[in-house]
Amino acid sequence: MKKTDLLLKNAHVVTMDDSFHLFPDGAVAINDGEIVSVGPTRDLLAEYQPEEILDCDGKVLIPGLINAHTHAAMTLLRGLADDRRLDVWLLGYIMPVEREFVTPEFCRLGTLIACAEMIHSGITCFADMYYFEDTVAEAVAEVGMRGVLGQTVMKFPSPDAESYEDSLAAAREFIKRWRGHPLIVPSVAPHAPYTCTEQILRDCTDLAVEFDVPLHIHISETLQEVEDWRETYDMLVIPWVKKLGLFEAKVLAAHCVHIDESEIHTLQHAGAGVSHNPSSNLKIASGFAPVTEMLEHGVHVGIGTDGAASNNDLDMFEELRLASFVAKATTHDPTAAPARQIMAMATRIGAKALYLDHLTGSLEAGKRADLVLVDLNTLHSRPHFDHDPDAIYSRLVYATKSTDVTDVMVEGRWLLRDRQLQTIEPEPSLRAAAEYAKRIDAFLIEREDSVVSKLVAIGGAEQEESYEVQIKVRLPEPAALIELLDSGDLDIVRSVHYREYDTYYTFDDPGQGRLRYREDEYIDEAGEVYNDRNRLTLIGPAAEREFAQSVLLSRSRYFAPATHSERFYREYFNPNHEFAIHKDRLRWLVRFREKEFFINIDRLLVPEIEGYFLEIKTRTWSRRDAEEKAGLILALLESLGLEGAQEVTQEYPDLVLETTS
Amino acid sequence: MKKTDLLLKNAHVVTMDDSFHLFPDGAVAINDGEIVSVGPTRDLLAEYQPEEILDCDGKVLIPGLINAHTHAAMTLLRGLADDRRLDVWLLGYIMPVEREFVTPEFCRLGTLIACAEMIHSGITCFADMYYFEDTVAEAVAEVGMRGVLGQTVMKFPSPDAESYEDSLAAAREFIKRWRGHPLIVPSVAPHAPYTCTEQILRDCTDLAVEFDVPLHIHISETLQEVEDWRETYDMLVIPWVKKLGLFEAKVLAAHCVHIDESEIHTLQHAGAGVSHNPSSNLKIASGFAPVTEMLEHGVHVGIGTDGAASNNDLDMFEELRLASFVAKATTHDPTAAPARQIMAMATRIGAKALYLDHLTGSLEAGKRADLVLVDLNTLHSRPHFDHDPDAIYSRLVYATKSTDVTDVMVEGRWLLRDRQLQTIEPEPSLRAAAEYAKRIDAFLIEREDSVVSKLVAIGGAEQEESYEVQIKVRLPEPAALIELLDSGDLDIVRSVHYREYDTYYTFDDPGQGRLRYREDEYIDEAGEVYNDRNRLTLIGPAAEREFAQSVLLSRSRYFAPATHSERFYREYFNPNHEFAIHKDRLRWLVRFREKEFFINIDRLLVPEIEGYFLEIKTRTWSRRDAEEKAGLILALLESLGLEGAQEVTQEYPDLVLETTS
Repeated sequence: MKKTDLLLKNAHVVTMDDSFHLFPDGAVAINDGEIVSVGPTRDLLAEYQPEEILDCDGKVLIPGLINAHTHAAMTLLRGLADDRRLDVWLLGYIMPVEREFVTPEFCRLGTLIACAEMIHSGITCFADMYYFEDTVAEAVAEVGMRGVLGQTVMKFPSPDAESYEDSLAAAREFIKRWRGHPLIVPSVAPHAPYTCTEQILRDCTDLAVEFDVPLHIHISETLQEVEDWRETYDMLVIPWVKKLGLFEAKVLAAHCVHIDESEIHTLQHAGAGVSHNPSSNLKIASGFAPVTEMLEHGVHVGIGTDGAASNNDLDMFEELRLASFVAKATTHDPTAAPARQIMAMATRIGAKALYLDHLTGSLEAGKRADLVLVDLNTLHSRPHFDHDPDAIYSRLVYATKSTDVTDVMVEGRWLLRDRQLQTIEPEPSLRAAAEYAKRIDAFLIEREDSVVSKLVAIGGAEQEESYEVQIKVRLPEPAALIELLDSGDLDIVRSVHYREYDTYYTFDDPGQGRLRYREDEYIDEAGEVYNDRNRLTLIGPAAEREFAQSVLLSRSRYFAPATHSERFYREYFNPNHEFAIHKDRLRWLVRFREKEFFINIDRLLVPEIEGYFLEIKTRTWSRRDAEEKAGLILALLESLGLEGAQEVTQEYPDLVLETTS
Repeated sequence: MKKTDLLLKNAHVVTMDDSFHLFPDGAVAINDGEIVSVGPTRDLLAEYQPEEILDCDGKVLIPGLINAHTHAAMTLLRGLADDRRLDVWLLGYIMPVEREFVTPEFCRLGTLIACAEMIHSGITCFADMYYFEDTVAEAVAEVGMRGVLGQTVMKFPSPDAESYEDSLAAAREFIKRWRGHPLIVPSVAPHAPYTCTEQILRDCTDLAVEFDVPLHIHISETLQEVEDWRETYDMLVIPWVKKLGLFEAKVLAAHCVHIDESEIHTLQHAGAGVSHNPSSNLKIASGFAPVTEMLEHGVHVGIGTDGAASNNDLDMFEELRLASFVAKATTHDPTAAPARQIMAMATRIGAKALYLDHLTGSLEAGKRADLVLVDLNTLHSRPHFDHDPDAIYSRLVYATKSTDVTDVMVEGRWLLRDRQLQTIEPEPSLRAAAEYAKRIDAFLIEREDSVVSKLVAIGGAEQEESYEVQIKVRLPEPAALIELLDSGDLDIVRSVHYREYDTYYTFDDPGQGRLRYREDEYIDEAGEVYNDRNRLTLIGPAAEREFAQSVLLSRSRYFAPATHSERFYREYFNPNHEFAIHKDRLRWLVRFREKEFFINIDRLLVPEIEGYFLEIKTRTWSRRDAEEKAGLILALLESLGLEGAQEVTQEYPDLVLETTS
């Protein structure tokens, strides 16, 4: 008789191994956190001398479920703003609240609550992507769950990093600290192609390869993303990231809703993992992922809950059922995504998608003891039929509720016994979360009158965080400069002439920003208007940093096409003040020492201000880049013969207000 | 102070009245099963002197949920056969099992279990359609739920009726017995257009109008149904039933998945109720009902679970979430079907769909006390945000589980208190159901080798229950008869000449039926083959009844297009015996005294049998009709001058086997 720590007996063991072995009266022997044997109860009782025997009383024993994509800490934003368009939800609610409230403490609380909810739902392992991931990892390790935890990196400042270099450095430190942990696999999470730059994706890939950790990223979640990629790059998203070398890393791609067959081949060929997130995709109306096709091509497709802010719960059994239902309905085939395959997605295949199938995802000797007991002796699960052995999978997928989970073990440690959490007491966290919710409610109620909310409420506002390095100088006479710019000595990419008719609405509270209604008239060489465009821009207060003479401006802006009349906007936003600026602008896009810069020669028509202004400006995404470009702007100014020109530090609205007041 | 039986206080009252009134600290006063007042706790405590006060402790108080379409007793077939095509599921499993097992006792048990499950899910009222509905009504009344219960009528023999006349008569008796009951509204349920005849639909409408009861019917559930209607009638289904006058009755139409805008207008104009059944439509891959469009047009669309055999549970909160998710995803609009509207569908609008909104569906003075307490102080529902008052609806729809329902009242009587059922003890029923399941398992396992299963397993078998009245006689010389038939004296609808090459597979167990592989060659006037067709038919043993010289044959047949080779079928079905019959057939379709009859003049080529055979046959759907047609066949035989002809009582295969053995 072999000695062992624990033997679970009299269970309906659903191994989820490659051959889908079932042991209707089965047992599992566990030693030192590892599964040492799985088989009929009678055989294991004969072979092992366990320190403890647990009678499972006919419950179903399954491997722990794998939640392949979530943002655990977002439980603190559960149901923050439902039934809203993605941009309104994200830009109008989630991001403003995250900017204001997300701290390490927020992430710790949110993660603890998420873990408690996930354990109740039979989840033993999840892939996370959020901020302050080091704090997240501490909470997860404390609770005793298994996680592939991704430190977010993106081009915008985030709650935990001012710049992408900072977040990349944090990701490196995070990976170094946690690699080798028995439960935690650290990873790097470039948020999505559209929130990163090519450089960020390249740097994240290098980091993931250097430490051999997974790279977790959102890919092709919405049709908009794919259309933007077609327009900008004339490419689909997956070929584009492939070209950048992303698949050199172990990629876990969340969503993959709008991908075609060639992209499915790429995912398969790369051995990439995919997380299918049915609730989230349905609730935000992202679309229907081609799950059946991905599985047919051998892609490792797991199932994820996504975050509670877009779901609104972390109920894995709900996701299983939905994953099957949606696959059937969209393929018009009720035999699609049968229950056994869905269970495989949530266990063995999900573990592959997270690059953890050597440790978890099935009940097999040699794997870690991550397992779940489910009580199917319930009202909603009876009667049941046994003529088809696969009926056990269909009971688990089509009728089981997460509340039927009674016991959960990870790495041989009980996290749930008889429906009682063992390693976490969620009440204090829930009370603290309620305090956060009150503060967030107050923040949102106060903002109710805010311009940005109103802009968002009328639909389609697009947010941009812009970072520009710029210099502005007085230019008494532009003729010589125009001649120089038109001479061909400089590398001119394109030039344009237009008039801008701006109406600014301002508010007593300067924090509301300025709302600009702008009509652009494009002027051809004969001086005729050949095109116009109206749009509305809400310009947040700029944060400035000076570099020699030039200035780094970071601003949040919300753009919306101005489809209504000026009168509508005046009535709707009810500004405290209003003023007009009309100007004539000649603009060149020039390449200078391999970077691109805009040069504007502006003349103010309303109010009339004598003379001309020269602006040189360029976009930037990182601190290092901004410093370099500030130097280049000075060099460019010099090469235009304007090194002594009178500097203007104000933006036009401030200049106008000062001049006219 | 007014006296009252009961006052529920300190609840978050979600009235679901027309103005969506909310009372965050609300109360409801109940007297004699009726809601007498709804308002702030403070106001009601000042106004009423209740015999009993129940402190709801901040729980959410909602009107009882309305399950707009189910087959309650089918809980006994829960998960009988999942992940299968609709025809295989229905014809291969559900119908054979129903034929064998559905009895009043079955319906009583299944209904009790369904009621228990529905009460736990917050359902207080449901619309049912099944067999032995009188037994169903007894069970529902005993449990104390409210129900619109429909006795099924259709053209096939059903577990509770040999013919449609029997079921129609049963429906009349059922309605007479139950009308006026405080909880039960009896109704008539012609199963679906494709399982009824025009006459049946007309008779059911008349019955519903006579007693002013709802008429419950499946409409446009699958694309196949709509395509069949287009092909057969050149019409969509709803215009077709409208033409028959169906909307003279108070129609409750289940599914309405494949309907167009004009059909939506018809439903709206008729004031018809619709049940949207998201789980069922997704799981069977029926399609996506145009729920948003129906609601926009003012159609009363409730939400239904459908039966447990196609769902596999009766979890109303799951259906609410799905109804919202599916509407959002299919319209690509996350603002579609917002939580408040979904809650209205499940309560007030659902009550309208069932023609019960004067009694239930909202918490308003004057309605019956059908209500539910839900505990939202759960891990999966916290934290929560209050900046938007509609957040309460979104918590109910997007995060609540049916297990959060703690108390349920119907007509002032508690059916659930603190999650404990009060009027039903489901364990004995569940044990009895387990016995049924064992017997059904045995039946299906025994059938595992059956020809019909195998036929169904290779896909696309279509079942037909055929009822034919026929006579067959010897015809030594057909020339005179052919001349008569071609003379124009009779009313010939059409005639055709073909050769039938049949191979019969038979089995040692005659109960398996005979499997026929038939190749038809159609012959033109020049004697050339101009078309052919292969098909496979499994012919069950015929039940016979004699009428004078003619015979009523009822047979179940399964048809499948024979897309594989004869060799494939021989290997696949592995018959014990095999024989061939080839015959030359001249066939006329004639109208005789306003009925249609087939006249066949057959000559057997293989095996060669001397002489000719004359068959006269006609389809029938009811006993009365069969008797009448039997008389007409004799008259037709006489008018063909064959009254003395030698009768043949055997069908060709039996004749051949006898002749050749």
